[in-house]
Amino acid sequence: MSVLLADILAARRTIAGVAVRTPLVPSPHMSAVAGSEFLLKLETTQPIGAFKLRGALNAVAAVPAGAAGVTCCSTGNHGRGVAWAARARGLRAVVCMSALVPQAKVDGIRALGAEVRIVGRSQDDALAESRRLAREEGLVEIPPFDDPLVIAGQGTIGLEIAEQAAELGAALDAVLVCCGGGGLVSGTALALSEKLPGVPVYSVEPAGFDDTARSLASGSRIANDMSNRSICDALLAEKPGEITFELNRRLLKAGLVVSDAEAQIGMAHAFRYLKLVAEPGGAVALAAAVTGKIDMKGKTVAVVCSGGNVDQAAFLEALTQAGEV
Amino acid sequence: MSVLLADILAARRTIAGVAVRTPLVPSPHMSAVAGSEFLLKLETTQPIGAFKLRGALNAVAAVPAGAAGVTCCSTGNHGRGVAWAARARGLRAVVCMSALVPQAKVDGIRALGAEVRIVGRSQDDALAESRRLAREEGLVEIPPFDDPLVIAGQGTIGLEIAEQAAELGAALDAVLVCCGGGGLVSGTALALSEKLPGVPVYSVEPAGFDDTARSLASGSRIANDMSNRSICDALLAEKPGEITFELNRRLLKAGLVVSDAEAQIGMAHAFRYLKLVAEPGGAVALAAAVTGKIDMKGKTVAVVCSGGNVDQAAFLEALTQAGEV
Repeated sequence: MSVLLADILAARRTIAGVAVRTPLVPSPHMSAVAGSEFLLKLETTQPIGAFKLRGALNAVAAVPAGAAGVTCCSTGNHGRGVAWAARARGLRAVVCMSALVPQAKVDGIRALGAEVRIVGRSQDDALAESRRLAREEGLVEIPPFDDPLVIAGQGTIGLEIAEQAAELGAALDAVLVCCGGGGLVSGTALALSEKLPGVPVYSVEPAGFDDTARSLASGSRIANDMSNRSICDALLAEKPGEITFELNRRLLKAGLVVSDAEAQIGMAHAFRYLKLVAEPGGAVALAAAVTGKIDMKGKTVAVVCSGGNVDQAAFLEALTQAGEV
Repeated sequence: MSVLLADILAARRTIAGVAVRTPLVPSPHMSAVAGSEFLLKLETTQPIGAFKLRGALNAVAAVPAGAAGVTCCSTGNHGRGVAWAARARGLRAVVCMSALVPQAKVDGIRALGAEVRIVGRSQDDALAESRRLAREEGLVEIPPFDDPLVIAGQGTIGLEIAEQAAELGAALDAVLVCCGGGGLVSGTALALSEKLPGVPVYSVEPAGFDDTARSLASGSRIANDMSNRSICDALLAEKPGEITFELNRRLLKAGLVVSDAEAQIGMAHAFRYLKLVAEPGGAVALAAAVTGKIDMKGKTVAVVCSGGNVDQAAFLEALTQAGEV
């Protein structure tokens, strides 16, 4: 079971008018600081504040009429996307999350009318509860990343980056994409491999949760030590998905890794130069760009910024820690 | 000397590809809180972090080749726009500002290669210096608002709002626009009066600098008491422009006024629900919307959000003061 460009094109038709064609904007100020031409894909401007709406809309659209509802496990943003998509279709939604999920994300999901179940302290616990609900209550499970419809939905970002770069007259030298389970980066890389063949795409992960980087290097899926900790709460998947890794293995140039402190520097850049509120996990690609994880001096680099669902205290802490950028 | 729709259409051609067609995005979360359907025009995503790039590009494009350069007075964002536009044309730019302008704005302008002159403690002082430079050094003056080319540039926002609302299938009941000297709101209202006739447009100003609101009510231009203070540093014009007020008198429904505390609530909403960094003056229209300055329950309201050039300390102070929103 894989994903094809045709699936992404179909997803675009399905989600059009609900998911936003987010802007790809140049940042002359940030470019002056960092010496590369940056084009920022502002997925924080999605109605739910993160790209996850795309995949959720595409997957929920395929749920049969008359279904009892949908369920998912989530670190927060996928749940928010599923809640949004379910509400639009009048479906019941139950989002299962661990106790580690920030309050802002729990509140955001409840505000959309979804039920929230807080279970355990890991995504595994949340997944188990979601599977139980699917089995016992007949809810349709919407996986957070390892699903062809979800990947195809996220991949619409790749189509847009290719089109918008052309509209700006920009020739891209690289594309940086944040990575948890790999749904976003695999879909984006698939679209770009067809629309801008030869442009290298990199995943960016937080240190300690760099399963995709290590898996790419080794050629097979390697899991994280789940006793590790990171402030990048959106990117704490245990290991690459089967479908996502099969795509990423073939399509990605390499996996980049940033520390929590670097993620905070990315957040500070987003605040200062992009006027954007980025959550830690949403800022890792930006962080890799501005801290020079690969040499991009004089190059043109597209960077996906997503999402922005961060508690106020964590945001203030990041700006304070990062200092002047 | 007035401005016509044809001037705005010409401005759009002039600034295309440099100024961004910023997104108009729905905010289901904010709508759930406030009971209206909001469509947010995200001018913070302009490369300079504020709408002022539009008018500056349009005006600087008209400067004759071979000119000695350009100059302007500014509270910060206009100067940043002029600096950007001048750099793109290889022109010298001198931006005159009062000592009250936030450091983030001074830094932003210098980063674009413009010279900054800090003179006095009012826009009048800055204006006098800019006029002197025009007279003595032959620089072309780019007025911050009371200029047909500047107004026409800002008015491109009105064209985009009309088009983007149609793309979203939304019928607008009102449009709220922040207002200093009135360049943005007059241009926007002019475009909307032709593209969406009958939709009321409101200016929004900070208390103490509500010259447009009072001038609209009285029918003639009334100045502010310039000993007043407001955190909305971008909106501290002394009185409405001649050209802008002639348009606003004819085109605006009324002028709304928000307190500094309400502007901070607007900033907190932008942080929490829009994932946007808004400066105080950029958040006043949002503030008027969420604090119910006019009854818009159940209505669909477009709100211009611009800009985001705020010092970190002022931003943190606003979130703290506003508390939970």
